[in-house]
Amino acid sequence: MDNGSKEKYLDLNLFRGLGEDPVYHPPVLTDRPRDWPLDKWAEAPRDLGYSDFSRYQWRGLRMLKDPETQAALHDLVWEVRPRTIIELGVYGGGSLVWFRDIAKLMGLDTRVIGLDRNLSRCQIPAEERENISLHEADCDDLASFEVLRDAVHPILFIDDAHANTFNVMRWAVENLLTPGDYFIIEDMIPYWSRYAPKLLSQYLATFRDELTMDMVYANTSPQLDRGVFRRS
Amino acid sequence: MDNGSKEKYLDLNLFRGLGEDPVYHPPVLTDRPRDWPLDKWAEAPRDLGYSDFSRYQWRGLRMLKDPETQAALHDLVWEVRPRTIIELGVYGGGSLVWFRDIAKLMGLDTRVIGLDRNLSRCQIPAEERENISLHEADCDDLASFEVLRDAVHPILFIDDAHANTFNVMRWAVENLLTPGDYFIIEDMIPYWSRYAPKLLSQYLATFRDELTMDMVYANTSPQLDRGVFRRS
Amino acid sequence: MDNGSKEKYLDLNLFRGLGEDPVYHPPVLTDRPRDWPLDKWAEAPRDLGYSDFSRYQWRGLRMLKDPETQAALHDLVWEVRPRTIIELGVYGGGSLVWFRDIAKLMGLDTRVIGLDRNLSRCQIPAEERENISLHEADCDDLASFEVLRDAVHPILFIDDAHANTFNVMRWAVENLLTPGDYFIIEDMIPYWSRYAPKLLSQYLATFRDELTMDMVYANTSPQLDRGVFRRS
Amino acid sequence: MDNGSKEKYLDLNLFRGLGEDPVYHPPVLTDRPRDWPLDKWAEAPRDLGYSDFSRYQWRGLRMLKDPETQAALHDLVWEVRPRTIIELGVYGGGSLVWFRDIAKLMGLDTRVIGLDRNLSRCQIPAEERENISLHEADCDDLASFEVLRDAVHPILFIDDAHANTFNVMRWAVENLLTPGDYFIIEDMIPYWSRYAPKLLSQYLATFRDELTMDMVYANTSPQLDRGVFRRS
Amino acid sequence: MDNGSKEKYLDLNLFRGLGEDPVYHPPVLTDRPRDWPLDKWAEAPRDLGYSDFSRYQWRGLRMLKDPETQAALHDLVWEVRPRTIIELGVYGGGSLVWFRDIAKLMGLDTRVIGLDRNLSRCQIPAEERENISLHEADCDDLASFEVLRDAVHPILFIDDAHANTFNVMRWAVENLLTPGDYFIIEDMIPYWSRYAPKLLSQYLATFRDELTMDMVYANTSPQLDRGVFRRS
Amino acid sequence: MDNGSKEKYLDLNLFRGLGEDPVYHPPVLTDRPRDWPLDKWAEAPRDLGYSDFSRYQWRGLRMLKDPETQAALHDLVWEVRPRTIIELGVYGGGSLVWFRDIAKLMGLDTRVIGLDRNLSRCQIPAEERENISLHEADCDDLASFEVLRDAVHPILFIDDAHANTFNVMRWAVENLLTPGDYFIIEDMIPYWSRYAPKLLSQYLATFRDELTMDMVYANTSPQLDRGVFRRS
Repeated sequence: MDNGSKEKYLDLNLFRGLGEDPVYHPPVLTDRPRDWPLDKWAEAPRDLGYSDFSRYQWRGLRMLKDPETQAALHDLVWEVRPRTIIELGVYGGGSLVWFRDIAKLMGLDTRVIGLDRNLSRCQIPAEERENISLHEADCDDLASFEVLRDAVHPILFIDDAHANTFNVMRWAVENLLTPGDYFIIEDMIPYWSRYAPKLLSQYLATFRDELTMDMVYANTSPQLDRGVFRRS
Repeated sequence: MDNGSKEKYLDLNLFRGLGEDPVYHPPVLTDRPRDWPLDKWAEAPRDLGYSDFSRYQWRGLRMLKDPETQAALHDLVWEVRPRTIIELGVYGGGSLVWFRDIAKLMGLDTRVIGLDRNLSRCQIPAEERENISLHEADCDDLASFEVLRDAVHPILFIDDAHANTFNVMRWAVENLLTPGDYFIIEDMIPYWSRYAPKLLSQYLATFRDELTMDMVYANTSPQLDRGVFRRS
Repeated sequence: MDNGSKEKYLDLNLFRGLGEDPVYHPPVLTDRPRDWPLDKWAEAPRDLGYSDFSRYQWRGLRMLKDPETQAALHDLVWEVRPRTIIELGVYGGGSLVWFRDIAKLMGLDTRVIGLDRNLSRCQIPAEERENISLHEADCDDLASFEVLRDAVHPILFIDDAHANTFNVMRWAVENLLTPGDYFIIEDMIPYWSRYAPKLLSQYLATFRDELTMDMVYANTSPQLDRGVFRRS
Repeated sequence: MDNGSKEKYLDLNLFRGLGEDPVYHPPVLTDRPRDWPLDKWAEAPRDLGYSDFSRYQWRGLRMLKDPETQAALHDLVWEVRPRTIIELGVYGGGSLVWFRDIAKLMGLDTRVIGLDRNLSRCQIPAEERENISLHEADCDDLASFEVLRDAVHPILFIDDAHANTFNVMRWAVENLLTPGDYFIIEDMIPYWSRYAPKLLSQYLATFRDELTMDMVYANTSPQLDRGVFRRS
Repeated sequence: MDNGSKEKYLDLNLFRGLGEDPVYHPPVLTDRPRDWPLDKWAEAPRDLGYSDFSRYQWRGLRMLKDPETQAALHDLVWEVRPRTIIELGVYGGGSLVWFRDIAKLMGLDTRVIGLDRNLSRCQIPAEERENISLHEADCDDLASFEVLRDAVHPILFIDDAHANTFNVMRWAVENLLTPGDYFIIEDMIPYWSRYAPKLLSQYLATFRDELTMDMVYANTSPQLDRGVFRRS
Repeated sequence: MDNGSKEKYLDLNLFRGLGEDPVYHPPVLTDRPRDWPLDKWAEAPRDLGYSDFSRYQWRGLRMLKDPETQAALHDLVWEVRPRTIIELGVYGGGSLVWFRDIAKLMGLDTRVIGLDRNLSRCQIPAEERENISLHEADCDDLASFEVLRDAVHPILFIDDAHANTFNVMRWAVENLLTPGDYFIIEDMIPYWSRYAPKLLSQYLATFRDELTMDMVYANTSPQLDRGVFRRS
């Protein structure tokens, strides 16, 4: 490695996906038999021996939304009946397929739009892309969001990229969202609330005339904790 | 009330559904505004003020499976690709529709069969019954299970009625299940394990030649805790 | 086993005792020496390696009341000075002997009455039956409770059978209890409160003119949690 | 107050009883009605609003042993069938009466001996002193323990005074206890183990040839935690 | 050992220091390598395998104040800018050196005075005694505190000896402290509050005209919990 | 705001300090009196009503190291006796002053070097800069680290900027550190370990020939959790 000239390691702090293999692999038990004999039932270990997070999938695509979050977002889609669901941060693409599937099951005519700086990790098979659009876009270049201008309302706009978030939110409020639409920040509120409590409160207060926190969905899962906002 | 002649109260101990209204009602906040102003963001309460259990639903039908359990059963269906899913205990019917939906999304040709002593609480609309069969059956009368005889394999057999469970399990093992099929006991293992540990171990051990515990699914959610068995 | 004709396994869901051996057996350590050497004192394991529940006993008879519950019921007997203590659900009979013993120590002239569908598991030795009466009775047949009609007040009426509970409670309120008497539901309130919250509240409210919850005893132990009611 | 001449305040660090009124007073709810109406059942508070410790009593005498400890000591008396139970630290005297009562119920011919520097707080009524002996003794003056010399075996020797403990234990081992007898240190092991771990281990190790820790009773309650020793 | 004539074991209940070696020894890992290889990083154990308390030190002298307490006392010194800091209980002397060091860093002209019944365990090297005074004094003989009479204000008076505490506090209030000075009780309030709640409240209330609890420092660390009082 | 042209909000995800006012402000109680009367002592609230994090300071400068971390780093400085301490991420500068102060108290001749992309928030007064050097440097431009080349060993190199961390670590290992020096990653290991476990393990493993984890310091505080590495 030349000093300072090229980077060898990705910046783990980007939180843009797990930095892991975007392909889902079924869990494998390495330290015990998977088939546990029933005459030893009471002695079986009570855990899986690996992190639960790597386990979440939807039809063979990795999902970075945990089950509680899936249940809450199902309810939100059921209530709002969105015509457009936008997600910043595509990674493997599992949650786009999941949104498309549940909207379709509910009989909705919904377009799911994924934006990411880098779509190369997306694992959605070609035959699964019905009603799903993918666009390269950069949270630091809000002009790249212009592709969203004609989105049909109601809209759910989900930030799962966590870069430049409040400027993206300001852009969405001023250029895209109309009353009844939602802007959702996943995962990050607890960290920001710990490490930058004053700035976070101050930033959110600047949206007081355009957004309110929806107390139902903002309290349903750790990933959505205090991060679900409705355009008023 | 005449002494002993008629009962006025249902027996809450039956655990056959929640004894609640089987119709799903969206949650309503009674002690706070649902729209919380963003300039008071940091003071918002951090809970919903009501039990989470009454909240679970699938497309407007109540679900008595919590999100973690849904995620685990999704994975099981994905792995086993069952042709038949049998559930004892129908209640509102939400989980039958859920099983049918996810199996269909996976491209499976799966029949979902619900059995209950009392189908009157079932809320599945007529137009949603594709691939779903409903039968009255009584766990205390194993002859009423004969309707299952021709089920196509692989089979997932889920006990969610919790009456006469081990005799039902014995019947299933002897009359229905072939290698690779599953028998699942939801919810009850933790209670039985606390109040009748010796008898529970002894009962399970009588199945040691026909079933094993699947350590992956038996460790994924509290409702499935140590209750997922595979026909060997 | 013939299909559906005979049952081989007991229904663990009945909660009528532990389904275990009703005879008390002292605990035995299997995975470590019972005598731990004092020059290795600091390395001794800090648990017993087995469930605490099987350990509770009174003078060699199994007790299904945990120590916190015993302390609370001691206090209740001390305050109310009952002339009759009725317990539905006898099992090994340990708690009947315990009630008799503490009442006698307090100088009370108290009769302890145990009712059970099946008295065959009762372990009370013949010479220990002073002031204890045993009757076969069925919670589903309230006529079988007529034997209680002449009980002397004050009365403590304890439901430890958990079958048809609210009809039994209605019968007791209408036919037996007078002001100052108690009706107690052990163990089940937390489960019912989780799985049938609306129905439970609604059932209890039907007793609002006849019973109140005694906030002291209803808050003293998990087994008595929110289940101690006084005839007003 | 003259400087240094007289003390006005007791030393709370002595731990010789609670420093509280040794007379038991029944608990009183000050911030809510004791009779809670059943049509508001679900809104009832779930605590007592006061410390549990002041609540423990035995037949109207305060007990400084919590319920788990009572259960464990009951079992120990049941197993060892002691002829003598010695307790250092009498305070209100409740536990002496409790020991006497349970031993009598078990049909044992047991003498209960209480030693304290100050017997003035003892609340045992005159008519309740059968089989109970009280002696003034000072843990700092081991000669005052000579009154115990003729105690009949088996012996349970319980230190509940917590002054000069290990010298008392050495005296008991050398002058009183024979194989099968017990020496028990209540309450203090967790504190000493936190603040003086090396010295505690070293002191206990000096008894390695005469005592072992009984792993059953030393693991049953926080008050007995790692403090139950058997003369080997 | 002669019976009752001489004591062999220290009384662990005195809480006058840890009863441990007052010399600080760096921690040593005995059950694992200290250098853990990075290609096994994820499998490394997550604890130290020994109590944290023996680890606290300041420049090679043992500290019986944990890090949270050090942070809180730093803040108190920063706010009050004391000219005198008195500590009852010297033990190894580490906290006297620590107080002197931080006061000096803050540019304060502060004298640190340590009192103990027994100064033989003090480990402060001769060349580190600048601005530190040591006196033998006995909490049970308040006359021995006369040496403090001329202390310059503001004063922080810290009880870390825990003997005769409230008489010492009364002496300090009547003879030494002026408005703005502090009296601090370390460590003991939680224990006294559990075992002698009424007496403790009653003792503190006798100081109501002279002291208030400082709610900032009384809530910052477990060792200072509810024990920081300001002369009003 | 023009779309995409200018940013109005800082990116909270940068974790470069708290995004808060870098000036330390003493805590103020807003919802209760600071002086709590002693005759109401037992009713005092048991918390401060505000986050602890904003409270940490050193001589009036904010500290982003919590007390446990300060204690652990004190011990590390005491053991290693570094001649150079480098910290990436200066923010208010409090920890540079803290490092300089404790090194000086230990009699060490230590230079403390702070690097930051933006030194404008630094609050160190001019008269407090003895032995402290400040440099503008960018973690994304490793050439800007050349200023560190002549640092005297032993060296402690602390990453508190969390940008491009592993490339910085590679640079330090190849260009700066010699055996016995340390590289420390504060705060981030738990997050990275949750969201990118495989990549994190893989990155650390690439340093297996040059660094080991020091199991003592890597287990002492949450901020240092598994992030203290020694050059071998």
